[in-house]
Amino acid sequence: MKIGLDIMGGDFAPQAAVLGAIEAYKTLSAGQHLVLVGDKEVAVKILQEENFNPDHFEFIHTTEVIGMGEHPTKAIAQKPDSSIAVGFKLLKENYIQAFSSAGNTGAMLVGAMFSVKTIPGVLRPAMTTIVPKLKGGLGILLDVGANADCKPDMLVQFGMLGSLLAQSVYGIDNPRVALMNIGEEEEKGNMLCLATYPLMKSNTQFNFIGNMEGRDLFGEFADVYVCDGFTGNVIIKMAESYYVIARKKGINDEFFDRFNYEQYGGSPILGVNAPVVVGHGISSPEAIKNMVLLSRNMAESHLVEKIKQVFV
Amino acid sequence: MKIGLDIMGGDFAPQAAVLGAIEAYKTLSAGQHLVLVGDKEVAVKILQEENFNPDHFEFIHTTEVIGMGEHPTKAIAQKPDSSIAVGFKLLKENYIQAFSSAGNTGAMLVGAMFSVKTIPGVLRPAMTTIVPKLKGGLGILLDVGANADCKPDMLVQFGMLGSLLAQSVYGIDNPRVALMNIGEEEEKGNMLCLATYPLMKSNTQFNFIGNMEGRDLFGEFADVYVCDGFTGNVIIKMAESYYVIARKKGINDEFFDRFNYEQYGGSPILGVNAPVVVGHGISSPEAIKNMVLLSRNMAESHLVEKIKQVFV
Repeated sequence: MKIGLDIMGGDFAPQAAVLGAIEAYKTLSAGQHLVLVGDKEVAVKILQEENFNPDHFEFIHTTEVIGMGEHPTKAIAQKPDSSIAVGFKLLKENYIQAFSSAGNTGAMLVGAMFSVKTIPGVLRPAMTTIVPKLKGGLGILLDVGANADCKPDMLVQFGMLGSLLAQSVYGIDNPRVALMNIGEEEEKGNMLCLATYPLMKSNTQFNFIGNMEGRDLFGEFADVYVCDGFTGNVIIKMAESYYVIARKKGINDEFFDRFNYEQYGGSPILGVNAPVVVGHGISSPEAIKNMVLLSRNMAESHLVEKIKQVFV
Repeated sequence: MKIGLDIMGGDFAPQAAVLGAIEAYKTLSAGQHLVLVGDKEVAVKILQEENFNPDHFEFIHTTEVIGMGEHPTKAIAQKPDSSIAVGFKLLKENYIQAFSSAGNTGAMLVGAMFSVKTIPGVLRPAMTTIVPKLKGGLGILLDVGANADCKPDMLVQFGMLGSLLAQSVYGIDNPRVALMNIGEEEEKGNMLCLATYPLMKSNTQFNFIGNMEGRDLFGEFADVYVCDGFTGNVIIKMAESYYVIARKKGINDEFFDRFNYEQYGGSPILGVNAPVVVGHGISSPEAIKNMVLLSRNMAESHLVEKIKQVFV
C-alpha cells in the first residue's frame, strides 16, 4: 500500500510535514510505503538534517504550491503541478491508495471531487471531525464545513457515512446516530431538522436514536452527530477555542487535552472514491503523523468499498 | 416602578423564586417595587420561614401553573389564571413595567407576543444571552432560540436589537456587531449569511464589523454576535456544557465561572413592547435575583422606548 502525503501543505510545511512523515514511517506495517509529494530537494535536505535515510520514502517532485488563502477551484486548475493537484492525480490513478494534506481545505475538497470523484449515490461528500467524550472514547461530528447549506436527504446520508467511519476506522459497534437539534422532541427544530427527523427515523441502514442538543456533544448520548456544515463548523471552531483557552490558562486536564487536534490528525472527507484526509493548517509533526495514519487506517479498513456497497 | 416576577416558574419554584425575590428586594432603589405573581399562600409561608415581612412585596394570587413541558400556545390559552398568563396581563395593562420568569420558555415567548405584542417594525422578537469574554467584559449573542429559521432582514434587525441592549443595559459604547459565520471573508458562509452580509454592511444604524467564527466568541472580536436561533441555541447549550464540565472537574477559574448563568439571570426577549426576561429552568435564588434586576435594568434604561424609536 502506498500512502500519499502532501509535504507542502500547512502553515509549517514542509518542515513539519517531513518530520511528521518520519514519525509516521516508524509505525507503518510491512508493505506500507509513504509517498511524499512536493519539493523533493527541500525534503531530502530536511531528512538529511535529521539523519534520516531519504530512501525510506518515495518522492514525487512537484514545482508548485497552493497557498492557504487561494481560491480552491482556480488554484487546482491553474497549478497542475502543485502538490495537491499531483497528489490527487496519483490517487485517481491508484498509484497511491490514500492522500492527506494539511494545506488548503477547499482545494482538498475540490481536488477530491474533481479527481477521484464522489461515490455514485452520494449526494455530497462530507467533512468529519472527532469529538472527545468526557468519560473517554469519541464521537464523530459531520458535516463540519464542506456543505454550508444542506438538504434533509444529505443529512440522512451523513448519518450513514458517519456510521461507516465509526465502525470501520474506530471500531464502534452499531454506532448511535443523533441529529443535532435545539430540542429532544421530534417536533422541535428548524425546517431542515423537522424534515430530516422522519427520514432518519424510517431509515433502516443505521441506528438513529433521535435528536440531540449542544450540551450532549461531549457526553454518552450518541456516537455520530449529524448536522449541516454551517452548524458543524461553528461547533468545531468553538470547541477548538476552548482547547486553546484551557491551554492558555494552564489547565491540565485529560479531557481538555483530548481536544488537541494533533491526536486525531485531521478530517476525513467521506463520500469520495478514495481515502482523503485534510489536516489542520497549523499541524505539527505529531498531527501530520496522525493524519497520515488516519488515511492509512481508512485505506486498510476498506472504508471506501464499504461506503460504495451501501450507496449502490 | 413595579417589577413583576412569576414565582411559579422554574424547576425549584416557588422556593427558589421567593428566596430570589428577597435577595432582589435588598438591592432595589426607592420607588421600585416587586410584584410576585403566583400562589400567595405558599409564598407567604416561605417568607415567614425566612422571617421576611411579606408586606415588602405586592402579591397577585394565581391558581394555575404552566408546566415546563407544556405546549406554549395551548397552555397560555387553556390556563388564563396561570402565573405567566396573569403576569403578561399585568404587563399589558402597564400595572407592572417589567416581567420575568424562570418557567416555560415557549410560554414566555408566546405570552409576550400575544399580550404586549411585537414592536411595530420588528419582524420577529429575539432571545439573547450574555457571553463572557476571556479578558473580562461580555458580548451579547442573539438569537438563541426564538427563531429556528431566520431570513436575512431578521438577522439585520437582531444586529440593531443587540446593539441597543448592549448600549442601554450594559453601557457598551458603539457596540461592534459581527455576523456568526464559517469564514471571515464576505463571500464565505451559508445562503443566509451570504444574503445578510451586504444588508448589514450597508446598514448605517449599527456598527457592523463583518463576519466572525466560532472561535471568536470569547475574544475581543465584537460586542454583539448575530446568528439564527438554531445556531445560537446550539452555541449556548454547548457553552453551558463546558461550564458544567469545568465545575464537575473542579476547575476553579474566573473565566469559566463567568459562564455561570446565575450571574446574568436570564435571556431578555427583545423586540416586544415591554421588558421581558426568561430565566433558566434550573434557576437558583441568585439567578432569580439577577433575572429580576435585569428586567428592572431594561425598564430603567428605557430600552423598549429606544427600540421603538429606531423601528418606527
